[in-house]
Amino acid sequence: MSSTATPGAGSGPSSLWSVDEHLEDILGAVRPLDPIEMQLADAQGCVLVEDITVPVALPPFDNSSMDGYAVRVADVAGASEEFPAVLTVVGDVAAGSGEPPAVGPGQAARIMTGAPLPPGAEAVVPVEWTDGGTGSGAATAMRPAGAAPEGATGEVRVHRPAELRAHVRARGSDVQAGDLALAEGTVLGPPQIGLLAAIGRGSVRVRPRPRVVVLSTGSELVQPGEELSEGKIYDSNSYALTAAARDAGAIAYRVGAVTDDADELRATIEDQLIRADLLVTTGGVSVGAYDVVKEALSSVGDEDEPGSGIDFRALAMQPGKPQGFGSIGPDHTPLLALPGNPVSSYVSFELFVRPAIRALMGLKSVHRPRARAELRTDKALTSPAGKRQFLRGAYDAEKGTVTPVGGSGSHLIAALAQADSLIVVPEDVTSLEPGTETEVVLLG
Amino acid sequence: MSSTATPGAGSGPSSLWSVDEHLEDILGAVRPLDPIEMQLADAQGCVLVEDITVPVALPPFDNSSMDGYAVRVADVAGASEEFPAVLTVVGDVAAGSGEPPAVGPGQAARIMTGAPLPPGAEAVVPVEWTDGGTGSGAATAMRPAGAAPEGATGEVRVHRPAELRAHVRARGSDVQAGDLALAEGTVLGPPQIGLLAAIGRGSVRVRPRPRVVVLSTGSELVQPGEELSEGKIYDSNSYALTAAARDAGAIAYRVGAVTDDADELRATIEDQLIRADLLVTTGGVSVGAYDVVKEALSSVGDEDEPGSGIDFRALAMQPGKPQGFGSIGPDHTPLLALPGNPVSSYVSFELFVRPAIRALMGLKSVHRPRARAELRTDKALTSPAGKRQFLRGAYDAEKGTVTPVGGSGSHLIAALAQADSLIVVPEDVTSLEPGTETEVVLLG
Repeated sequence: MSSTATPGAGSGPSSLWSVDEHLEDILGAVRPLDPIEMQLADAQGCVLVEDITVPVALPPFDNSSMDGYAVRVADVAGASEEFPAVLTVVGDVAAGSGEPPAVGPGQAARIMTGAPLPPGAEAVVPVEWTDGGTGSGAATAMRPAGAAPEGATGEVRVHRPAELRAHVRARGSDVQAGDLALAEGTVLGPPQIGLLAAIGRGSVRVRPRPRVVVLSTGSELVQPGEELSEGKIYDSNSYALTAAARDAGAIAYRVGAVTDDADELRATIEDQLIRADLLVTTGGVSVGAYDVVKEALSSVGDEDEPGSGIDFRALAMQPGKPQGFGSIGPDHTPLLALPGNPVSSYVSFELFVRPAIRALMGLKSVHRPRARAELRTDKALTSPAGKRQFLRGAYDAEKGTVTPVGGSGSHLIAALAQADSLIVVPEDVTSLEPGTETEVVLLG
Repeated sequence: MSSTATPGAGSGPSSLWSVDEHLEDILGAVRPLDPIEMQLADAQGCVLVEDITVPVALPPFDNSSMDGYAVRVADVAGASEEFPAVLTVVGDVAAGSGEPPAVGPGQAARIMTGAPLPPGAEAVVPVEWTDGGTGSGAATAMRPAGAAPEGATGEVRVHRPAELRAHVRARGSDVQAGDLALAEGTVLGPPQIGLLAAIGRGSVRVRPRPRVVVLSTGSELVQPGEELSEGKIYDSNSYALTAAARDAGAIAYRVGAVTDDADELRATIEDQLIRADLLVTTGGVSVGAYDVVKEALSSVGDEDEPGSGIDFRALAMQPGKPQGFGSIGPDHTPLLALPGNPVSSYVSFELFVRPAIRALMGLKSVHRPRARAELRTDKALTSPAGKRQFLRGAYDAEKGTVTPVGGSGSHLIAALAQADSLIVVPEDVTSLEPGTETEVVLLG
């Protein structure tokens, strides 16, 4: 972890860190979690850490792509509805059944989709090109084997010729043994999991989802559902950020609110370390006399352990000026200390915590997508000089526009719940005129 | 459930159902699940079934937006660094602390962000506009209350005047009691959960995530990790579709492969019904002699129960021609029977099952997003007349292009794992030239 205590050469005033410097610091320090072997079904959304090669060709054997009859090409040459080829049915070849019957001259085997092409057969004619063994016109389906076992014997009339290998899927036509199935770094979505199953992988080596512990701080916080007494407010940050961590791909634990007591906070964090790959706190990081996160964590670094400890910084950013970042505990578990205002903490999460979670997962794409959009507003938006401002917006992809939702106050959580994007006002812009093209961060 | 046994007036040949007819039938039959009261933290991703109004204004009381000093405006009028206003500090107002001290003429209270504005005070001056009670120059922060309790007493020098209500967030400036916080139909993401917590809701009435049971059928199927004997293949559908169901928002249960035995299949389905809001099967729905899903489920409908039973249909679609849909069991649990080829089952899932899952959740947006893209390919793509073809594609949003990945074979699962989209070739198109603009379904 960085223990730099002064901001770099950023775009803000010299006493402030820029958003980019802070983010760079975080992403420079957070390492992907060590991989583990995981059951295939549990690995959904995880990142592969190995190239997966194909052990056995897919399909593993020549097989039929249709329900029909396995035939020899010469036997059905010139066949038509008027002059059908009449073949002796020697049995059934069902998918997964045992030894298939051999098909000799003048013979056919009833064959099902996916079943191996029997010895002697060269092509498959779909059942719809035959009488299905009924002795009458063109069939639309086979008679079920259970209900009409005689379908696997007797005669079948074939109404059309078949080319060599017609309706046969060749062994290895999907992938060959030794082919690269999936490359290291692949994110395992449903089709990738399907492919791994298809080549027989019951487990894979992936980076696990990070376990993120979220705790809010503040003696004013009451849990939702309880009664609100004088001077208290409900704890919303721990709920919003736990949900956001889950959304980012983490296994998230909500610890809830800790009172403004440095010892209690330190004890709670130490207690939680055992199940945390990342700790997130909200509140208590500013310049007040009761900012216990700062008080409790400014001194946790072990001077003999380079890189440990939490730095508290002022960022050239609005909302979200006060931020803490560093590592804590024997395993140097990363910790992000976010400001306590609901909008500040949520915006900080999106900008700093979400990328950290995705970096822990080993994902290459850690950031929210961004877009350029035309600002729709009645009057110019004002923004403090030297600060990067993030306003809540409603983005319209069709029109390529974004409309501010609510004001800039960092306590306006109702407006946040109506927004789907963040409007970025750069450091050097103090007024954003209606119609200006601006950058937008697209949320979920 | 629809029990229509013949296709409507679709775009396909008269014996085939169109993709749109089948989808319409499914969405016409699937009803959103009954809502339940759910703990707020568990309701992530669910749809609200009630308008939520604000019970108590947010913020619930006038409070400070800064760490600083609560003052009377007249006392700091004309204050400057050269001629500071000197005020007597009467105590601390921390967020969540008890009764705040009253601020009389010539007095100030040290106040923290979020703490209630004390009686008598009219504005807040940030600590940076004062000496922080130190008697020297401008402060950058307060001294922590624990380390320096004397900060809450003595004198403070204020260097700037303050306007009435400066740095005060008014009670109700976010939302007022009685305001609509969130409307019925809102999907609960992190900011919405944050807002509900902020207004004190510990639980909400939402539609639960549907429980989807996925089972593959086929005597040829072996579980990944086990040994593959002659004529067998690995079960991949149950893995891919369980993951896809989870991805769509469901709680998904993978039952795995059932052999081609109608009685066993019927027994397994009956057994699973208790935990299913939706059943998905793969395989056994075509025209073969061992298509046991069709055999087992064609007769499950109770003739005395209108709307029960499963219809098996041929769709004007490639891949995915054979499909089954209907309801089963005493609760008329919807069941979708998909074809067994891996690509067919996955494409069918995306087109029919995913929308059904999202309809069960009560979501308004049930479909994958679509885009128009220019086809990048060396030679024209061919497609059978009268069928809507779905080819696997790699979509480039920047360039607005899509490139086919792999061929059209419904067994090509390796190519599917490299695709991010489906290229739609309409029923009346038999050849799609390079450079043509075409429709693309964007997969997650």
